[in-house]
Amino acid sequence: MAKLTEIAWEEFERLPLEAKRPYLENDAIPDTPYHTLFAQQFDRGLLERLAALANRIRFMAKSKEGALYLKSLLPHKRAMLYFSQPSSRTFLSHLAACQILGLTTGSVRDAATSSEFKGESKEDSIRTFSSYFDMIIMRTPEKGLAEHMAWELSNSSRPIPILNAGSGKDQHPTQALLDIYTLLRSFETKGGLKDRTVTFCGDLLRGRTVRSLSYLLTNFDNIRQVFVAPQQLQVPTDVLEILDAKGVKYEVSDDLRAAVKISDAVYMTRIQDEWDQSKGESARIDTHLFKFGAEELKLLPKDGIIMHPLPRRDEIATCCDHDPRAMYWRQMRNGMWIRSALIAMTFGFEKQIMCFGA
Amino acid sequence: MAKLTEIAWEEFERLPLEAKRPYLENDAIPDTPYHTLFAQQFDRGLLERLAALANRIRFMAKSKEGALYLKSLLPHKRAMLYFSQPSSRTFLSHLAACQILGLTTGSVRDAATSSEFKGESKEDSIRTFSSYFDMIIMRTPEKGLAEHMAWELSNSSRPIPILNAGSGKDQHPTQALLDIYTLLRSFETKGGLKDRTVTFCGDLLRGRTVRSLSYLLTNFDNIRQVFVAPQQLQVPTDVLEILDAKGVKYEVSDDLRAAVKISDAVYMTRIQDEWDQSKGESARIDTHLFKFGAEELKLLPKDGIIMHPLPRRDEIATCCDHDPRAMYWRQMRNGMWIRSALIAMTFGFEKQIMCFGA
Amino acid sequence: MAKLTEIAWEEFERLPLEAKRPYLENDAIPDTPYHTLFAQQFDRGLLERLAALANRIRFMAKSKEGALYLKSLLPHKRAMLYFSQPSSRTFLSHLAACQILGLTTGSVRDAATSSEFKGESKEDSIRTFSSYFDMIIMRTPEKGLAEHMAWELSNSSRPIPILNAGSGKDQHPTQALLDIYTLLRSFETKGGLKDRTVTFCGDLLRGRTVRSLSYLLTNFDNIRQVFVAPQQLQVPTDVLEILDAKGVKYEVSDDLRAAVKISDAVYMTRIQDEWDQSKGESARIDTHLFKFGAEELKLLPKDGIIMHPLPRRDEIATCCDHDPRAMYWRQMRNGMWIRSALIAMTFGFEKQIMCFGA
Repeated sequence: MAKLTEIAWEEFERLPLEAKRPYLENDAIPDTPYHTLFAQQFDRGLLERLAALANRIRFMAKSKEGALYLKSLLPHKRAMLYFSQPSSRTFLSHLAACQILGLTTGSVRDAATSSEFKGESKEDSIRTFSSYFDMIIMRTPEKGLAEHMAWELSNSSRPIPILNAGSGKDQHPTQALLDIYTLLRSFETKGGLKDRTVTFCGDLLRGRTVRSLSYLLTNFDNIRQVFVAPQQLQVPTDVLEILDAKGVKYEVSDDLRAAVKISDAVYMTRIQDEWDQSKGESARIDTHLFKFGAEELKLLPKDGIIMHPLPRRDEIATCCDHDPRAMYWRQMRNGMWIRSALIAMTFGFEKQIMCFGA
Repeated sequence: MAKLTEIAWEEFERLPLEAKRPYLENDAIPDTPYHTLFAQQFDRGLLERLAALANRIRFMAKSKEGALYLKSLLPHKRAMLYFSQPSSRTFLSHLAACQILGLTTGSVRDAATSSEFKGESKEDSIRTFSSYFDMIIMRTPEKGLAEHMAWELSNSSRPIPILNAGSGKDQHPTQALLDIYTLLRSFETKGGLKDRTVTFCGDLLRGRTVRSLSYLLTNFDNIRQVFVAPQQLQVPTDVLEILDAKGVKYEVSDDLRAAVKISDAVYMTRIQDEWDQSKGESARIDTHLFKFGAEELKLLPKDGIIMHPLPRRDEIATCCDHDPRAMYWRQMRNGMWIRSALIAMTFGFEKQIMCFGA
Repeated sequence: MAKLTEIAWEEFERLPLEAKRPYLENDAIPDTPYHTLFAQQFDRGLLERLAALANRIRFMAKSKEGALYLKSLLPHKRAMLYFSQPSSRTFLSHLAACQILGLTTGSVRDAATSSEFKGESKEDSIRTFSSYFDMIIMRTPEKGLAEHMAWELSNSSRPIPILNAGSGKDQHPTQALLDIYTLLRSFETKGGLKDRTVTFCGDLLRGRTVRSLSYLLTNFDNIRQVFVAPQQLQVPTDVLEILDAKGVKYEVSDDLRAAVKISDAVYMTRIQDEWDQSKGESARIDTHLFKFGAEELKLLPKDGIIMHPLPRRDEIATCCDHDPRAMYWRQMRNGMWIRSALIAMTFGFEKQIMCFGA
């Protein structure tokens, strides 16, 4: 198996994402991630194993007995949550995932830290965390930092796994995992995740969520993708090129209602105006046709679901919240389960959990 | 029993506080709070049950065996401390209460969060926390938010209890509980909390503490209340109207020493200049006669006690700190015990704790 | 034995450091610290006991069984980390130490807190923490505060131990402990910590680290100290006066390479420009001869070690990081072990840990 200790950083950095995957696996456990850095590490087999593990953890957590068993798995380990780019939602979800497995945690979660560590390299900071903790869950605006640290730590005298909780504009792998898990769960008893139409709507240009999920969906059979957005925010061509290369059917549209009628899942997204290049750029775009409200709810097939990575503004009306097809709250909670599953798998507890009570 | 799922928000909101109480109780356990939102939820029976439970917890926590038993009650649950209005003291007290019962915790405790969640409604933020946690302990400057969230969560697919740790100027129920608990403990072996004179002194106009405690004291027999303050900061008339309506004896005065001489408890408060409408408003008030020092200590009856919600400035001289009648440090620690009791009761562990070792 | 309850604060404050030591010991356990305030509390016997205990804890933590045993020691206790002077590194190291022993923790770790507690004395704040927690680990820019609080708490109705995690410019005792532990470990199988040359290099004027370590080294036999720095940042004369008084051999130099050649340990330090009196003061000093790089690495004896309290800037080149003699990462991790040992000892678990598995 490929090992990070046997490749120079410069050489590793240049590899295409798919070729990096074997280097990020656990030496001791076949087909299991050690470092989790990008969505492209996960193929269909691994996604389905993770979903099964998350299901099992979710079920076990319902009883005190099961919950205590889960907490008994990793009380001897400590995780560091290093969020130099703050995000309470993602932070709390990972925190809860750690707590479910009994991991104790430490954290840095504000931007002020950057000034506090003034003069020290990010690499030294992360090496510091690795001295006190057994896993680093990191969120950073710096593209590639998580990857570099994974290489550095694997080549240090104290290798520990890195879990990327969002790096810059490019990767947020556990968001993609929770999206897939939500789709798998939603269609579990209805024929599974195949032969489906998934519609993406909103700001498809600037959201890493859409990019990752679109990619991961290509792992499943006959998933048609529909991209609904104002022209200025439509899905970038490189995303479509991947779909073309993989022979995936898709459609680019500006008619949300037409898409909703034929969708199994409608994935709404927020206008990401924090990426505006000029002031008020997003505000000048007419987005009123790209919101999901009472009318759209009527058009959605009865087994269809509505998803959203949250936070939302007004792109989904609150009147939809109590509809059983509104899946976004459950989707958020799924994040906690899939992250628990990922961390448990990383530390080698997949089998033990799957066998619990058997 | 009244249920939050059977009443519309608008209708519930309009009810008088006393009429709201049955809606906030635990479906499964009679006369036990599920959501804790305001002091008016607690009658004498419930206050005495909470005090007994707090006593028991305090006693158990003295031995490692007892402490471990308490920690074994809720290790499968997670509490979220959402403090959008920071307060380290109240935060740490609730945190310790959770830790005593084995609850793991997550937190948001700075104002910066408001900007982080920009564009998201408070309701969505709190719904988010409910995805990852089993109880929300919240402190907010927004009046009525805790109440609205209690209704929202009870009507969601994932109801969890809300504990109000201070909302705006109006309510801070657990502060009132710890005050009552301190009085109950102080007079436990001296005839109990009845036929007593309780003096309030300081800024009686703007402190929610005085308002709540004055109300809760009406639950006990023959408690006379004395309000000592500079004219500009005297107790508001609506507080006195409640006492009138309940036939409670009281006195309004500006003579602290005279009051101290006849008091069983003197409750000192800080001048709350953070509510000043114009700059220096409080500073222009002559408050030098409304401080407790060596002279007042001499006048206090030997079984009398001195209380203060803390933090203090100079309204109690530090020379009083070592006097056995100075109860404010113990009062603060009582907050931890009564909050433990409240949380344990909320999750249905009252009986189990009361029977421990029996 | 001397007791803090039997001496007035003013009298205690005036004592020389060495004379304060017996007052800070544990009533119940001979020769064991209760409050840890300054490096001068530790003599050679105690340093060696701490190192042995840290070794044992480090070894036990390698197995799940051992780690769980350690976590079973203090789950009934809570520690407060009060960092009014932020330092993520020191914070996380103490946090991890607590977690290793099963202590749950609360924290205040930002400067904003000072304004939050506005109007309250520091003494009242710390007394508050003592209400909810069983130990206070504190870092503060205020010289003498930790000492005063130790006296105050020992004289209160609720005495709990204080651990000084850095107070002003003067004391940071656990940093000195981890440095000594690192030296003891490094020479453990090579004849021990005696007859050695230890070189200090960098900003020797303004670092409390150098001051404390230089002092503690006088406890060991025949340790020669070499101080290498630009003239403006050389070691202060009072440090040298202590060495003179104790008959310790030392040398003051500006030739790093010459010193490296004959050193068993080279202790590099950062230019502490945060203490500059005028803008750019440090930047005007020529420091290029006081950095450790590839050339110095060649000159270092094969059993020699490189230390650094971290964070570093460029005073050690990253090309040294993978050399087996680079001890600074391990040194940092040693901080976690020695702090675990100190806390375990403070709570009376030294014997129990040393006997584990025996």
